[in-house]
Amino acid sequence: MLEQQLQFSLRDEDQLSLDLIEAQYTLKNTRDRNNAKSLVILVSGIELAGKGEAVKQLREWVDPRYLHVKADIPRLFTEKQTFWQPYTRFIPAEGQIQVMFGNWYSDLLTTAMHVSKPLDETMFESYIECMRAYEQDLKNNHVDVIKVWFDLPWKALQKRLDDMDVSEQRWHKLHGLDWRNKKQYDTLQKLRQKFTDDWLVIDGENEVLRNQQFAQYILHALKQLPKHKTTVRTKWKQAAIPEALFNPSIEMMDAAAYKAELKKLTRKVSDALRTDSRNVIITFEGMDAAGKGGAIKRIVKKLDPREYEIHTIAAPEKFELRRPYMWRFWTKLTETHEITIFDRTWYGRVLVERVEGFAKQIEWQRAYEEINRFEKDLTDNQTILIKFWLAISKDEQETRFKAREAVPHKRFKITADDWRNRKRWDDYLNAAADMLARTNTEYAPWYVIANNDKYSARIQVLQAILKQLKVD
Amino acid sequence: MLEQQLQFSLRDEDQLSLDLIEAQYTLKNTRDRNNAKSLVILVSGIELAGKGEAVKQLREWVDPRYLHVKADIPRLFTEKQTFWQPYTRFIPAEGQIQVMFGNWYSDLLTTAMHVSKPLDETMFESYIECMRAYEQDLKNNHVDVIKVWFDLPWKALQKRLDDMDVSEQRWHKLHGLDWRNKKQYDTLQKLRQKFTDDWLVIDGENEVLRNQQFAQYILHALKQLPKHKTTVRTKWKQAAIPEALFNPSIEMMDAAAYKAELKKLTRKVSDALRTDSRNVIITFEGMDAAGKGGAIKRIVKKLDPREYEIHTIAAPEKFELRRPYMWRFWTKLTETHEITIFDRTWYGRVLVERVEGFAKQIEWQRAYEEINRFEKDLTDNQTILIKFWLAISKDEQETRFKAREAVPHKRFKITADDWRNRKRWDDYLNAAADMLARTNTEYAPWYVIANNDKYSARIQVLQAILKQLKVD
Repeated sequence: MLEQQLQFSLRDEDQLSLDLIEAQYTLKNTRDRNNAKSLVILVSGIELAGKGEAVKQLREWVDPRYLHVKADIPRLFTEKQTFWQPYTRFIPAEGQIQVMFGNWYSDLLTTAMHVSKPLDETMFESYIECMRAYEQDLKNNHVDVIKVWFDLPWKALQKRLDDMDVSEQRWHKLHGLDWRNKKQYDTLQKLRQKFTDDWLVIDGENEVLRNQQFAQYILHALKQLPKHKTTVRTKWKQAAIPEALFNPSIEMMDAAAYKAELKKLTRKVSDALRTDSRNVIITFEGMDAAGKGGAIKRIVKKLDPREYEIHTIAAPEKFELRRPYMWRFWTKLTETHEITIFDRTWYGRVLVERVEGFAKQIEWQRAYEEINRFEKDLTDNQTILIKFWLAISKDEQETRFKAREAVPHKRFKITADDWRNRKRWDDYLNAAADMLARTNTEYAPWYVIANNDKYSARIQVLQAILKQLKVD
Repeated sequence: MLEQQLQFSLRDEDQLSLDLIEAQYTLKNTRDRNNAKSLVILVSGIELAGKGEAVKQLREWVDPRYLHVKADIPRLFTEKQTFWQPYTRFIPAEGQIQVMFGNWYSDLLTTAMHVSKPLDETMFESYIECMRAYEQDLKNNHVDVIKVWFDLPWKALQKRLDDMDVSEQRWHKLHGLDWRNKKQYDTLQKLRQKFTDDWLVIDGENEVLRNQQFAQYILHALKQLPKHKTTVRTKWKQAAIPEALFNPSIEMMDAAAYKAELKKLTRKVSDALRTDSRNVIITFEGMDAAGKGGAIKRIVKKLDPREYEIHTIAAPEKFELRRPYMWRFWTKLTETHEITIFDRTWYGRVLVERVEGFAKQIEWQRAYEEINRFEKDLTDNQTILIKFWLAISKDEQETRFKAREAVPHKRFKITADDWRNRKRWDDYLNAAADMLARTNTEYAPWYVIANNDKYSARIQVLQAILKQLKVD
C-alpha cells in the first residue's frame, strides 16, 4: 500500500487549489533545467467509481491551461503494436501534466477480459513487467508516472447502476464491461490486483474524500522535483574494438559482377520485404561517408515509395529535447508503414551524444538497456529489426571526403562537422565497440559490414537482409 | 497548360542536383523571415506512370534530410471528416518540403470511382472548389502547393502491366483500381481533367524525361520565394459595435431559481450532446473574466471526461508559428472526440492578434474568410459548431478582476496582461464587432450572451446549446 493512503486527511478546498496551482507553476518553470520533469497520471478503475468526477474536480482546482486530459476507449492489444505505441504522442514535454484515462493498463485488462482470446497468466505478468520497465525508463528521462485506481465494492456498484439515468447507462455500456456480471467483476478485481500494488487505490464510495485524495496525491507528486544525477560511480568497462571496425577488408568486386548480382538481389529483397507479413525496420549507423545512403538506395531500388518510409535523422529539435531521448523514435514508429528505414538512429545516444558530451555519463550508460528493451518490445510484436554498422578505414574515409569535396553536387554531404568528427575517430570506434557489445541481442543482432569497397558492401547488406528475413 | 510544360528541356543531372540542393538550403534559411515558405508537392496519376520512380530519383538528387515523403493508400471520404483533416499533420513548417503521394485529390478520385456510392458531378465540382480555396489559404500562409499528375496512355499502361513481375502486380492491385478495365480508365481520365488544369501533367512514357521534368518543376517552385505583403490598400470598414457588447443587461437570477434551472438544463444538455450523432464543437470567446470557464464547467457537469475534450488556448509555440495560423486548430480536430470545447479559439487571429499587432494587417483582414471556409468545411461534414461571445461591461470586469485578486486560489487567473488588455477595451470591442459582423454565418452563427449576471449567462449558454442542437 502506498504511503499516501495512510497519511490522508481532508483539507480546505481553496488552500488545496492554491497549492496545486503553485506546484503547477513550479513544475512549469523547471523546463530545460536540471530538476525538470513532466507528470503522467494514469487513471483506471471500476466503472462509476468516480474517476471522471475526480478528474473533473481536479481540472477545476488547477490552472486548466497546464493540465491535459486524454481519454479514450480501452483498445485490445494488436499483434503489430507494442503497448506503448498508441500513447507516445501524449507523453508530455517537461513542465507539462498529462492525465491518461485510457492507458496501457486499461488496454491490458480489456485484452485479458476479452472472452474469445484471453491472455494467459504468464503473458499477463510479462506485460506488467514490461510496463513497469517502460515507466522506469520514462522516469529516468524526466517523465514521472503516477497511477491511480478508483475502486468500488460490488454492492456499491450495483446500487449506482440502479440509480443511473438511461442515457448514462447506454454510454457506460459502450465504455466498459457488463458491470452487472459478478463473475466478470471478480475476475477483473483479481487481475488488477496483480499490478496495483504501486498504485494509489482510492475508494470511490465517498465523493468528497475521493476527489480530495486524488488531488492531494497529485499535489504530492508535483512537489517531488528530481535532481537528475549526471555521473555514475561504477567504472565503465570499455569493450575491445573488433578488428573489423578499424581494419575492414578490401575485397573488391568488379563492376560487371556487381551489376549482375545487384540486379538479382534488389529484386529478391523487394519481393521478400513485400511478402513478409511482419513490420520490417532496417537501420544504418557508421562513420561519415561509410556508404549508408548508397546502401539504402539499393534496398529500395525495386520498391515503390508508397511501400516504405525513410527517416533521415539529424539533431533533435527543441520540442524533442524536452521529452525522453527515445521519444522522437517512438513517435516515428506509430505510422502504418510496414517497411521503415532509418539513416542514423536511436543509437545516436551512445555514439554522437556520448562522444560529444550531449548526453551525460549516466544517460548514455543507461541507454543500452533502454534501447534493448525498446527493440525487444518491437520484435515481440511482429517486427523484424535489421541493424547495420557500415565500417570503413580511416584512410578510406579521407579518400571519400576528398572525392565528395571535388564534386559540386556532392559537396553538401561534407561539412566542417564531418572533419571535426574525424578527429575523434578513436572515440567513435570505442563507442561503436561498446554499442556492438551491449546491444547485439538475439532478437535484434547487428550486422557489421566491414568493407572499403562500396560494391561489395552493398551486396553484403542485401544478403544480410535476406538472411534475417530467412529467405535464401 | 502550365508554362513549365512548354519550357522544358533536358539538363545535366549533376548540375540539376546541385541547383536543387542549393535551392533547398535557400528555402531552409527563409525560416522565420519575411520571405519564408514551405513547399507541399501533391503527386497523383495513372498507376505505373512512374510517379514512384520520379520521387525516388528526386530524393537522390536533393539532400534527403530536408525532403519528407508521405505516402499512403487513397482513402474514401468519410462523413465526419473534412478532406483536409487526414493531412494537416503533414503540413510542413517553414523551410521544409513535403511530398504527398496520398492527398485530397487521390481521395476524391477514389471516392468518385467507388461504385456503390459514387459522387455526383455537382458534389465533385464543389469539392474541387473547396480544395482550391484550401490551397489558396495555405499559400497565403506561407505554404506553397504544387501539383503533379503522372499520365500514361491506355496502350502504354497495358504494356507495362504485361511486363510486370508477379509480386509487383499483387502490390499494385492493392493500391489502385483495376487498370485492365478500359471503361474505368476512361472515367478516371475524364474526372481528373476536371481539376488538372493547374497541375503539371507529365507524360510517364519516357523515364528520363519524366524524372527530369518533375525535378525541374520542383526546382522552379523552390526558387519562387514570396515577399509576403503586410498591408492592404482598401480602407477597412469597421462594423458598428452592437449595444449588447458594451451595455449588457443585468437581468439577475436568484440563486434558488438558478439552481433548479441549472439542474434541469445540465441534464438535458448532456443527454442532447450524448445522443447527437454529429460531432459537436462549442467555442468560447469574450473579454477576460467574462465567465468562459464557469460556463464550460456547467456544460460538462453531467458528462464523463471520456466523452469530451477541452482545449484551453494560450499563445502559440515556436513550431506552431512556423505553420499557418489555423494549423494548431486543424490538428486539434483530428482526434475522435465527438464533443470538443474550446476556451478561446481561432478567433484569436482577429481579436488579440489584431489588437496587439501580432498579425499583420493583411493577415487578420484575410482571416475572416479563412475562418468562414474552415467552419463551412466542418459543418458540411456532420459537425455542429456553437460559438459563444460572452459579454460583460467594463465596470463588471473591474469588479471581477478585483474579486479574483482577493482570493488566493483565483489569483492565477488574473495577471498584468489582463490589466493591460483592459486598457485596450475599445480596440477589443471594435475587433469583436467586426468578428461578429463577418463570421456570423448561417452554418455557424454566433450566440452573444450579454449579461453581467453569471447565473443568467450560464443558463443562456445551456439554452443556446439546446436550441442549436434543435432540442426543446
